Amino acid sequence: MIEKLIQKIEETKAPIVAGLDPMLKFIPKAILQKAFAEQGETLEGAAQAVWEFNKGIIDAIYDLIPAVKPQIAMYEQFGIPGLMAYKKTVDYCKEKDLVVIGDVKRGDIGSTSAAYAAGHLGRVQVGSQSYAPFDEDFVTVNPYLGTDGVKPFVDVCKEHNKGLFVLVKTSNPSSGEFQDRLVDGRPLYEWVGEKVDEWGRDHMGKKYSYIGAVIGATYPEMGKTLRKLMPQTFFLVPGYGAQGAKGADLVNFFNEDGLGAIVNSSRGIIAAYQQEAYAAYGEDGYSQASRKAVEDMTADIRQALESV
Amino acid sequence: MIEKLIQKIEETKAPIVAGLDPMLKFIPKAILQKAFAEQGETLEGAAQAVWEFNKGIIDAIYDLIPAVKPQIAMYEQFGIPGLMAYKKTVDYCKEKDLVVIGDVKRGDIGSTSAAYAAGHLGRVQVGSQSYAPFDEDFVTVNPYLGTDGVKPFVDVCKEHNKGLFVLVKTSNPSSGEFQDRLVDGRPLYEWVGEKVDEWGRDHMGKKYSYIGAVIGATYPEMGKTLRKLMPQTFFLVPGYGAQGAKGADLVNFFNEDGLGAIVNSSRGIIAAYQQEAYAAYGEDGYSQASRKAVEDMTADIRQALESV
Repeated sequence: MIEKLIQKIEETKAPIVAGLDPMLKFIPKAILQKAFAEQGETLEGAAQAVWEFNKGIIDAIYDLIPAVKPQIAMYEQFGIPGLMAYKKTVDYCKEKDLVVIGDVKRGDIGSTSAAYAAGHLGRVQVGSQSYAPFDEDFVTVNPYLGTDGVKPFVDVCKEHNKGLFVLVKTSNPSSGEFQDRLVDGRPLYEWVGEKVDEWGRDHMGKKYSYIGAVIGATYPEMGKTLRKLMPQTFFLVPGYGAQGAKGADLVNFFNEDGLGAIVNSSRGIIAAYQQEAYAAYGEDGYSQASRKAVEDMTADIRQALESV
Repeated sequence: MIEKLIQKIEETKAPIVAGLDPMLKFIPKAILQKAFAEQGETLEGAAQAVWEFNKGIIDAIYDLIPAVKPQIAMYEQFGIPGLMAYKKTVDYCKEKDLVVIGDVKRGDIGSTSAAYAAGHLGRVQVGSQSYAPFDEDFVTVNPYLGTDGVKPFVDVCKEHNKGLFVLVKTSNPSSGEFQDRLVDGRPLYEWVGEKVDEWGRDHMGKKYSYIGAVIGATYPEMGKTLRKLMPQTFFLVPGYGAQGAKGADLVNFFNEDGLGAIVNSSRGIIAAYQQEAYAAYGEDGYSQASRKAVEDMTADIRQALESV
């Protein structure tokens, strides 16, 4: 799956992932009104609005980008109907040949991590039958519980040609509270990064491992250090746009081959029409505003990479 | 909700939480066969078997214990039907007046953590209506992302009288890989524990905070240190039974008032009939085997606490 991701990045020339993190406040009124008219102001109504909003965006941008990253929390908040919309979104993106990174940040111990891994990346056995319930291509994983929390995910990835992005240094303001604490003179995130590199050696593609890392765009200096520390690890880089990082900040996350990182933007893409720069598209043109935002983001990152 | 938990611990004299972590291999053949006959060997069939298995156990033990802890991974692995069985289990346990600790180990940043919190503990707004999609009483939370990952959960807890158990020192063998690393001469889990204590002061019950901590029974010496460091924090203590900890190991996790901790056992209770000690109950008597296992566990812990 890392090979497919790299191939699609090379085809689209866009090391970009669109974060499908729909909040109701991002959704144009016409879509909300239609969904509520059909389903009422219910969880089902919210889920329908989310799905129709997503579909509009996916249809408008799928040819420009290699991958999407639906954030499951934004669906899970609407309970079972919300999770059905998540599944529908995953399936539809796969139909469009997009690589799907499920941003689930799961992580537990032993058989429990194995259950998450089976449900999201692998197959679950029911009597003589087996099923792939969510079937994302990659998921994000939290490393706080250590190797026996992550290893069951790696095992399932190996069996089913899937991949992970393990949280190393997150993009949020207080990520440093624990992640930056010095252990034997080096920040914890470096130790976590080394473990990710170690787990990843067990499941290599041609040049990069199937086991990637999440490194926030908001910390470019740390990205530089980690890039050297983990040359074979692909980075999923959140924090571009709404969280403040710009194209020039991103150079540190890439290798000299122009690969090694994929940059996420969520509301910067999906709620582009609510920003001044794309306001002219209006609510009706929300999906075309998203397309333009993807084109601008791609140009910004390409320019930054070319000017190195 | 922490007051309700404490009141129920005092009523039942059992500082015990039953981990509802059903795996198909724990479920008696008769239940599986009936579910597969009605629903086929499908995700729906698995979910029905899980639900009927749970119901039998809940009916057999609800009067003996204050709380249950369903592990959402064991349901999520069966996709949407599995998550429907999770929700049904949560609702049924609440009908039986059990405190429900959703073992979801979620954790993200800002608005994403807020979405998880709304979906699991609070309410989500849809137009003019609001809903409580999962509505557990407590959930477990992963602290790796720091204060701005946990604070949105705390805010929702305050608004809705709910609580958290934040991972501090987990029960698994490799929990020490990151959690035990020394930061300024003290292990990381102590720093995390202090933060949990700090977050918890913002949402206090009479004596204990609504914001608790997960501390593995398998590390009793560390439990002792943390007990002193966090006197107002309630501990959720996994690792009893199947993971190796015994009653005598647990004394360190309690305060002198006999409170301050609730000990989880999962397969030790729900799959008791598969153990030699309870094999005489047979598959048909699986729920009564679970009842006996709860009684034995309660006696073991009470004896240990009284012998201090």
